Amino acid sequence: MSDPGETPAYAALAERFGTAARLAAARSTLFWDGQTYLPPAGAWSRGEQLAALDATCAELIVRPDADDLFETADSATDALSPIERTNLAEMRRQWRHAAAIPKALLLERSRRVSAIQPVWLAARQRNDFASFAAAFAELLPLYREVAQAKAEALGLSPFDALMDEFDPGLSTQVVDPIFTALEQSLPALLAETMERQAGWPDPIPFSGDFSPDRQRALAYQLVEAVGHDLQHVRIDSAPHPFALTGSPGDNRITTRFDPDNVRFAIMATLHEAGHALYEAGLPRAHAFTPIGGARGATAHESQSTMVEMQAGRSREFLSWLAPKCAEIFGGDPSCWTVPNVLNAYRRVGSGFIRVEADEISYPLHIILRYRIERALLSGDLNVADISGAWSDFSEALFGRRPPDHAHGCLQDMHWAVGLFGYFPNYALGVSLAAQLFERAVQDDPAVLKNLAHGDFAPCRNWIVPRMHARASMVPFADLVREATGEPLSAAALQRHLRRRYLEEAAP
Amino acid sequence: MSDPGETPAYAALAERFGTAARLAAARSTLFWDGQTYLPPAGAWSRGEQLAALDATCAELIVRPDADDLFETADSATDALSPIERTNLAEMRRQWRHAAAIPKALLLERSRRVSAIQPVWLAARQRNDFASFAAAFAELLPLYREVAQAKAEALGLSPFDALMDEFDPGLSTQVVDPIFTALEQSLPALLAETMERQAGWPDPIPFSGDFSPDRQRALAYQLVEAVGHDLQHVRIDSAPHPFALTGSPGDNRITTRFDPDNVRFAIMATLHEAGHALYEAGLPRAHAFTPIGGARGATAHESQSTMVEMQAGRSREFLSWLAPKCAEIFGGDPSCWTVPNVLNAYRRVGSGFIRVEADEISYPLHIILRYRIERALLSGDLNVADISGAWSDFSEALFGRRPPDHAHGCLQDMHWAVGLFGYFPNYALGVSLAAQLFERAVQDDPAVLKNLAHGDFAPCRNWIVPRMHARASMVPFADLVREATGEPLSAAALQRHLRRRYLEEAAP
Repeated sequence: MSDPGETPAYAALAERFGTAARLAAARSTLFWDGQTYLPPAGAWSRGEQLAALDATCAELIVRPDADDLFETADSATDALSPIERTNLAEMRRQWRHAAAIPKALLLERSRRVSAIQPVWLAARQRNDFASFAAAFAELLPLYREVAQAKAEALGLSPFDALMDEFDPGLSTQVVDPIFTALEQSLPALLAETMERQAGWPDPIPFSGDFSPDRQRALAYQLVEAVGHDLQHVRIDSAPHPFALTGSPGDNRITTRFDPDNVRFAIMATLHEAGHALYEAGLPRAHAFTPIGGARGATAHESQSTMVEMQAGRSREFLSWLAPKCAEIFGGDPSCWTVPNVLNAYRRVGSGFIRVEADEISYPLHIILRYRIERALLSGDLNVADISGAWSDFSEALFGRRPPDHAHGCLQDMHWAVGLFGYFPNYALGVSLAAQLFERAVQDDPAVLKNLAHGDFAPCRNWIVPRMHARASMVPFADLVREATGEPLSAAALQRHLRRRYLEEAAP
Repeated sequence: MSDPGETPAYAALAERFGTAARLAAARSTLFWDGQTYLPPAGAWSRGEQLAALDATCAELIVRPDADDLFETADSATDALSPIERTNLAEMRRQWRHAAAIPKALLLERSRRVSAIQPVWLAARQRNDFASFAAAFAELLPLYREVAQAKAEALGLSPFDALMDEFDPGLSTQVVDPIFTALEQSLPALLAETMERQAGWPDPIPFSGDFSPDRQRALAYQLVEAVGHDLQHVRIDSAPHPFALTGSPGDNRITTRFDPDNVRFAIMATLHEAGHALYEAGLPRAHAFTPIGGARGATAHESQSTMVEMQAGRSREFLSWLAPKCAEIFGGDPSCWTVPNVLNAYRRVGSGFIRVEADEISYPLHIILRYRIERALLSGDLNVADISGAWSDFSEALFGRRPPDHAHGCLQDMHWAVGLFGYFPNYALGVSLAAQLFERAVQDDPAVLKNLAHGDFAPCRNWIVPRMHARASMVPFADLVREATGEPLSAAALQRHLRRRYLEEAAP
């Protein structure tokens, strides 16, 4: 130890961030409760509790002496282990984000975000873009102010500064070439696939007893197949599927059991089971520390879509799933043949809703939002023009315009809940999932083959040491390069989509 | 405002206590989750989250500048409204309790409390008093140290200092005459009642379909009868029944649906519905402030036992409940006649377990624990002698000795979870419930009469303004005197028990 007076600075910081992480995990559980079991009349008081947790976490990190503590800790990094040095850097990044925004601005944004949510819900219901636009026009300048404040504090561009909070190490420099490549290739691939599928028979609609209990029974079989055990997972119903994060050992997920759309619960359960598997694989020794958490939103989304899209829509997995559905749901046996399930799962090209989009259209939905967000942030696009821009992009990317705002620019809640600069990770995650899965199958063909028996063990054995166990201990770029041999790009996703949609035999 | 520079001290304190109350409400929900839905593997991480919340709350209240803030606020009470002055006094009380105990002692107690819980569970299972005694002998000195530290800080005796945390305004001075009166009258009343009941026919055992779904259906009817609406209440299963506290609008409860003991769920649901009704009736305008919370453990227990014992075991209520049970559970119709239900509910004198005790024995169970706790705290009793003392008290109060430790001194978890000085409120609450209910019926006979239709409205209309709506805005003694015209005593409970068990017609 070079100076015994200086390591205490690191320890003091680590203690504060450790408490903040525990409070954030508590917050995550309270959010889960709010989506599942909270009696409706408790909403106000839950909001008060969440706000108090947020303020307490922020206050812990942005204490007046934090600046000095970081300076002191920085001047004695020789006394720290390599992992402590990484942890210190990660704490500094989080502190800079938190300290960048004046408290009054944060409060004002929270207030406006709370106010706009019912406006957004009502506007979507009534196809009333104008009322949303009026409210959002007052919120957007706050997003701009936040981005500007972070940009100055972090030495990044405003959009990169927003992204860096969710996705450290990612930036428009990474996003742009990937999105350009996808934008240039996917519309043609989509058209070609639609043409090919025009010659297929119509899928036989899924039928059977889709009561919640049966769907739940299948959902539990799915999470167990993916690799969860019932000691650390549970499944509950919620309007929006999500996985609990930040609570080691508590990897519960939510999904929705819609009797008219059994596919939704299956896909959402697999998706959230993938998120939860990442959480479950994080190293317990670094629980509640910045380096012990997931490596960002793109990394997280790569794990959910690897399970849901790469594995979960493979011919192998569907050939295991189809008879399981027949067994659990009954119904017309001809709808549960592997060719018919494949036919139903692989159809592309229809619809306007991002969360229901097929694998080829999905990244295009994200690119559309990314273009609009960047133009809104820079001032190149006015709020009033969002709807027109949305339609024009839809036309350009999908060849059709949404019939109404609920199928267009009012479909997502993100801008109304404070998530700005967040969308890119969805398409980056899909790209990374393709890159990881392709490499996993090259390294061990059983990763794909064993899915035919509902066996994810080879997949887990490949991904856990390369991704989950490394948590936030290495930069995102290193994580990707060391796992796949390449930097993150669109190439693997492009290859995957061509293989699955143009080269695989028709069902 | 006498000095505009001094009211900020009050505001600063109020903000801290407001945050602490919100975090405590969050903690309460996390505790609920831990008892209901938390996956088993999440226990460690939940413990970490609860500890972080506890430490954060304590830290908020015991900041280095708190002393100065209280002094400054005290010197400018003219600038405060009467209600703010009461709030300031209540904040000071809470601060004194929190500040009295050195942090190291608190941590050491937490550690030992965590360690002793599995020891207690195993000891109870294996009827092994010695192993519990060995662990408890190391914990008791910490309880003594805490009591001593609080005694010095508050100018109270050690046992009173412990009680004051749970039950401000109560003390051994209140407890002793009440417990002495009960100790002198209840054993004879119990013997007399048992003699009377010896001539009754044996109750026909309850029968029917006691599956959890049916028990749950009845439980929801019970909470609605008591006065809850489904916007703010829900019922879940947990090993130990409890009501959520501190979350306005979120008044969920837990109970247990034991197919072999349908009475348990009914009584526990009514008990917790009473606690929840108190929480629901607290004034929203003072939510998350010290004066806006319940008036202490005795006040809370009076509300649960008023619903469970005073109202819930009345002939009127049981005459509503009996046909409802027949309708929901089916079974032998003769077991659900009002006389048979009364016969089953009113039986006294058997058993050794506090939570299953009849109304006459229950206070005696508490008095036994109180005597032992006081002797342990003062040093008059050694840990090794608890078991013998327990048996001797049982002999003296009930005329029999427990057959093993699980039915004796190892039956309750309180000493193993850090609750010392807490037991008295159970019997004080029962006494207060009798006093309140007697007065309510005198003021409005419909309080009792309407229970025959499952209608608690007159009871609520009487109690809410006198108790719930006043929260902690007046001292406990004033609350009791203004509601009932008398200070708290054993007289009403003694009258009630004689009336119900000796004077009411036999079933």
